[in-house]
Amino acid sequence: MKIAVVMGSDSDYEVVKKGLDILKYFGVEYEARVISAHRTPDTALEFAKGAEKNGFEVIIGAAGKSAHLPGVLAAMTVLPVIGLPIKSSTMDGLDSLLSIVQMPKGIPVATVAINGAENAALLAVQMLSIKDESLREKLKKHRIEMAEEVKRKDSKIMGLEK
Amino acid sequence: MKIAVVMGSDSDYEVVKKGLDILKYFGVEYEARVISAHRTPDTALEFAKGAEKNGFEVIIGAAGKSAHLPGVLAAMTVLPVIGLPIKSSTMDGLDSLLSIVQMPKGIPVATVAINGAENAALLAVQMLSIKDESLREKLKKHRIEMAEEVKRKDSKIMGLEK
Amino acid sequence: MKIAVVMGSDSDYEVVKKGLDILKYFGVEYEARVISAHRTPDTALEFAKGAEKNGFEVIIGAAGKSAHLPGVLAAMTVLPVIGLPIKSSTMDGLDSLLSIVQMPKGIPVATVAINGAENAALLAVQMLSIKDESLREKLKKHRIEMAEEVKRKDSKIMGLEK
Amino acid sequence: MKIAVVMGSDSDYEVVKKGLDILKYFGVEYEARVISAHRTPDTALEFAKGAEKNGFEVIIGAAGKSAHLPGVLAAMTVLPVIGLPIKSSTMDGLDSLLSIVQMPKGIPVATVAINGAENAALLAVQMLSIKDESLREKLKKHRIEMAEEVKRKDSKIMGLEK
Amino acid sequence: MKIAVVMGSDSDYEVVKKGLDILKYFGVEYEARVISAHRTPDTALEFAKGAEKNGFEVIIGAAGKSAHLPGVLAAMTVLPVIGLPIKSSTMDGLDSLLSIVQMPKGIPVATVAINGAENAALLAVQMLSIKDESLREKLKKHRIEMAEEVKRKDSKIMGLEK
Amino acid sequence: MKIAVVMGSDSDYEVVKKGLDILKYFGVEYEARVISAHRTPDTALEFAKGAEKNGFEVIIGAAGKSAHLPGVLAAMTVLPVIGLPIKSSTMDGLDSLLSIVQMPKGIPVATVAINGAENAALLAVQMLSIKDESLREKLKKHRIEMAEEVKRKDSKIMGLEK
Amino acid sequence: MKIAVVMGSDSDYEVVKKGLDILKYFGVEYEARVISAHRTPDTALEFAKGAEKNGFEVIIGAAGKSAHLPGVLAAMTVLPVIGLPIKSSTMDGLDSLLSIVQMPKGIPVATVAINGAENAALLAVQMLSIKDESLREKLKKHRIEMAEEVKRKDSKIMGLEK
Amino acid sequence: MKIAVVMGSDSDYEVVKKGLDILKYFGVEYEARVISAHRTPDTALEFAKGAEKNGFEVIIGAAGKSAHLPGVLAAMTVLPVIGLPIKSSTMDGLDSLLSIVQMPKGIPVATVAINGAENAALLAVQMLSIKDESLREKLKKHRIEMAEEVKRKDSKIMGLEK
Repeated sequence: MKIAVVMGSDSDYEVVKKGLDILKYFGVEYEARVISAHRTPDTALEFAKGAEKNGFEVIIGAAGKSAHLPGVLAAMTVLPVIGLPIKSSTMDGLDSLLSIVQMPKGIPVATVAINGAENAALLAVQMLSIKDESLREKLKKHRIEMAEEVKRKDSKIMGLEK
Repeated sequence: MKIAVVMGSDSDYEVVKKGLDILKYFGVEYEARVISAHRTPDTALEFAKGAEKNGFEVIIGAAGKSAHLPGVLAAMTVLPVIGLPIKSSTMDGLDSLLSIVQMPKGIPVATVAINGAENAALLAVQMLSIKDESLREKLKKHRIEMAEEVKRKDSKIMGLEK
Repeated sequence: MKIAVVMGSDSDYEVVKKGLDILKYFGVEYEARVISAHRTPDTALEFAKGAEKNGFEVIIGAAGKSAHLPGVLAAMTVLPVIGLPIKSSTMDGLDSLLSIVQMPKGIPVATVAINGAENAALLAVQMLSIKDESLREKLKKHRIEMAEEVKRKDSKIMGLEK
Repeated sequence: MKIAVVMGSDSDYEVVKKGLDILKYFGVEYEARVISAHRTPDTALEFAKGAEKNGFEVIIGAAGKSAHLPGVLAAMTVLPVIGLPIKSSTMDGLDSLLSIVQMPKGIPVATVAINGAENAALLAVQMLSIKDESLREKLKKHRIEMAEEVKRKDSKIMGLEK
Repeated sequence: MKIAVVMGSDSDYEVVKKGLDILKYFGVEYEARVISAHRTPDTALEFAKGAEKNGFEVIIGAAGKSAHLPGVLAAMTVLPVIGLPIKSSTMDGLDSLLSIVQMPKGIPVATVAINGAENAALLAVQMLSIKDESLREKLKKHRIEMAEEVKRKDSKIMGLEK
Repeated sequence: MKIAVVMGSDSDYEVVKKGLDILKYFGVEYEARVISAHRTPDTALEFAKGAEKNGFEVIIGAAGKSAHLPGVLAAMTVLPVIGLPIKSSTMDGLDSLLSIVQMPKGIPVATVAINGAENAALLAVQMLSIKDESLREKLKKHRIEMAEEVKRKDSKIMGLEK
Repeated sequence: MKIAVVMGSDSDYEVVKKGLDILKYFGVEYEARVISAHRTPDTALEFAKGAEKNGFEVIIGAAGKSAHLPGVLAAMTVLPVIGLPIKSSTMDGLDSLLSIVQMPKGIPVATVAINGAENAALLAVQMLSIKDESLREKLKKHRIEMAEEVKRKDSKIMGLEK
Repeated sequence: MKIAVVMGSDSDYEVVKKGLDILKYFGVEYEARVISAHRTPDTALEFAKGAEKNGFEVIIGAAGKSAHLPGVLAAMTVLPVIGLPIKSSTMDGLDSLLSIVQMPKGIPVATVAINGAENAALLAVQMLSIKDESLREKLKKHRIEMAEEVKRKDSKIMGLEK
């Protein structure tokens, strides 16, 4: 069970690596790639077409601006593709978001928040947990840890405001 | 293997049923519900908390305006939740889209296009196909059918413009 | 007479505390909490359901991105809920604003400006003043002070431009 | 205990009357007025300045486009003012919403959804219920009725999809 | 012949003073004021009502967020009012722009670009030039100076790129 | 004293004529023209350059989409130019508004609301009234008539809601 | 010299054919195709890769929503690609526009207005005229015809308003 | 074969020069100018009218805010005009983009991404390559170089994540 994490540019890596950390936390194998839908279209197609055979179960595609990468990958595979819109220097991420989420009928891309790399990874793990019960248990444990962290912060603020 | 399709209002049904038709096409069992995150919050929570035990593998949540339903369901289950933003009478669907897709770190919602009910359903099928090889084959067949439909339309337009 | 000030993340505290200062100015008792609608949904529900019994009269909910917290609280209580949209790192606060203000029919959230913590607090005081005449008098005094501050600035600028 | 419902134009009446029906349902006394912040500014000021003395407890201000009415009223009274943005023929209500909700520090307007007249009225009732226990009970009853209506629709859709 | 330059907050002064410099350049008398439509509404009204009698010919109103000031002034006088939207910390100035420019039928505000203080001043001078021929000649001279500055920059860039 | 009303396309006439009716009401002489900044640029330039000599005092420029007309006219004359953004079939008028209002430093365009033809005309009359006292009196009378119309509507709604 | 006009869906044909009429007017040979970047990605790639060899000089790509088609074609050829954003049922064409115009560094798409099919065709003709002098002459003639049409409309409106 | 690169302000030069570097890379002759559509309209017109005779084949127009320059140039020549929207201090480039791309029927502007100077230059080279086979070969070589750079980055990230 492997996840492919494909980013359109190495400048996306700073955002994307927060998602890779989540995948490590869950012990999910992944492969991180820089493949541009526009500058290396042949690699993109080859990668997407071979993804299933190469043992990938889910693909995460991260891209900014006219962010075609997740949709281009999704067009070439029936594996679920998660789209991660990256905020670039103009338009505050709205261009990336709309380019990824507004996919036409027939080829879905499971879109997460702008720069939401952690959630892209968590969504991938949730998908894998459909067939891997142990991941589901880890997800539940992760939820409890997140809740505890919020509760610690709650106590801290309540203390400050006492 | 069952999919839950939860809509926030019965007025969403007209959009949502195009997704239900996709599920029928793929022979995937589903349950369609009207549950409001705001008007029936207890039902929403109870449903989400019990979803895994009740045999659901994926949840689709459809909602408009301040569309909290998919996020509220996602907070109560580790099953993957697909968010379907419904366009309402103001703001052209942007409010629904942002309310669903911009989920904070920790609780992802797999968001599809505004009113993209078919893609919500296809994404659910793709997720199920992670453990069901036969669905993956059906998805490939569906892709071929879509391609053939486009090619028929291509021939028709080429004929008109000859 | 107590006000609950609930924020979705401790990172909201920097904005929220400007509102807490207003509440202190008016001598209104409050309780500040960090409760996440998504990461600690059970706490959120429990808090909202018990708020009336626990002596709260108004709830302020502050949240960013897909800001569900105020709506989730409002769904569980008939106390007036004030929504304070917090600007996060993308979308300039528009996502928070629309997620909070565009509530569907039946469950209102009294929304103030993006990062408008002082106004959230003042609105809460105005609501309390419906039954507390002394607060109404303090509000009038506060208006006079604000006007005097503007007038001092007016004199200063008129001086500069003489 | 009286609520003032002020609209900037008689063309807003079609939207506003859905809120008036809510006030009737709750047995809350109200006065509906057409007062323009721009075309009858003196009336607006006089109304707002006298509102408290004339027995109003809450003011609802409905307006479209550069919707200044709620803010102008709020500047002249310390009563809580609810802003109801009305969608006009351009900009899909975004102009009205931003003109109402983005109030500067010091003068809050409790803003509800674009064309959300019912919620403006419900919010007014919630505010009154701070001092009127019987209204709070009616609000709870109303919630139950809304929930039951959703459940009836849920059953209907479940029937259709059986 | 005098121009009133009214800003809603002293924090607008940094932007506004670029316009005041233009007025000085043209030798047009002006009075700069800080008057808040919301915090000093009585001063705003009094000022606008008396503006004509006090010898003002044009009013410039600068404000941010829910920028009601220019519209509120315009409602109280038939003098032409120029609206200068100020960019504040959220929404990139769109809220100020729409609050000022989308005035309803009957009360116009002559709106210039976000933070466009120089243009607000130039527009005021153009209005005065309707009755003051000497200002019109100064405006033509100013245009020639602007053109010459652009031509100098043109030569400089052409030099760099030779 | 004459006003030029220039529209970029005859399709703008339906909106523009509401402004022409205002000019007739005030007895202000005007000339209505269809001149395209893009399709008849020479006519546009010639018109703007000759406008002052031909007795115009104010120019109204109405245009949609990438609405360059008002700015192009303003670049060729020091007469005040009023920009009237026309809503076309896409983008809800936002493109027209931003193309007109966001003029760079040096060449102002006095922008009114999208499709706000009446206000464009009223603003032109206000400008003329700087040198024509009788127009100022008519403007005051017009304000009174508008106020009376609002008051009639107020009475009507108060009657309905009694 | 041939132009390829590729649309992502046959539903785009109604808009696109206005551009085809322009191509006919100029006597430019074209081929109109329906090719989906998402549903027939192989056809899209094959078409773009072979376009130069097959005698095309310019490609027009028309698409809506997450409009990847022009960018996908542009990635596979060095021929100039013109992007024509098609307005679909949500988001008023903004999604299509941003998906097409915000192309990352390296692969340009020459974008025209939303639904601007005539301009896409005229731009293609302008490109061809770089090597075909006769087309340049036809373009000049077309400009004169457009100007004359505007002048006729100008006369008509001037007549109406006499 | 020459390209004109016209910017509306010397402050655009920092963005524009990245495009000039591309033109140098391809050995394409160009002339860089600062010409303002608003402050030096006569120069703009003269330049555009003479461009063809002066040996230019393509014009790039770069401008911000109400970015009329590319459209104004396009109105005066039948040469293809490329529009480069420059992001200024407000509105995140949306004003520039819409002012350039939404050109009305008849006068196209080939628009590239906000601040996309490299793509403006590449598009110009693609247009020239319609008649210059050697440029087409250089474009293909450039594509290969871009692909190789992406592949190097891909290897680097794969190394980091091993």
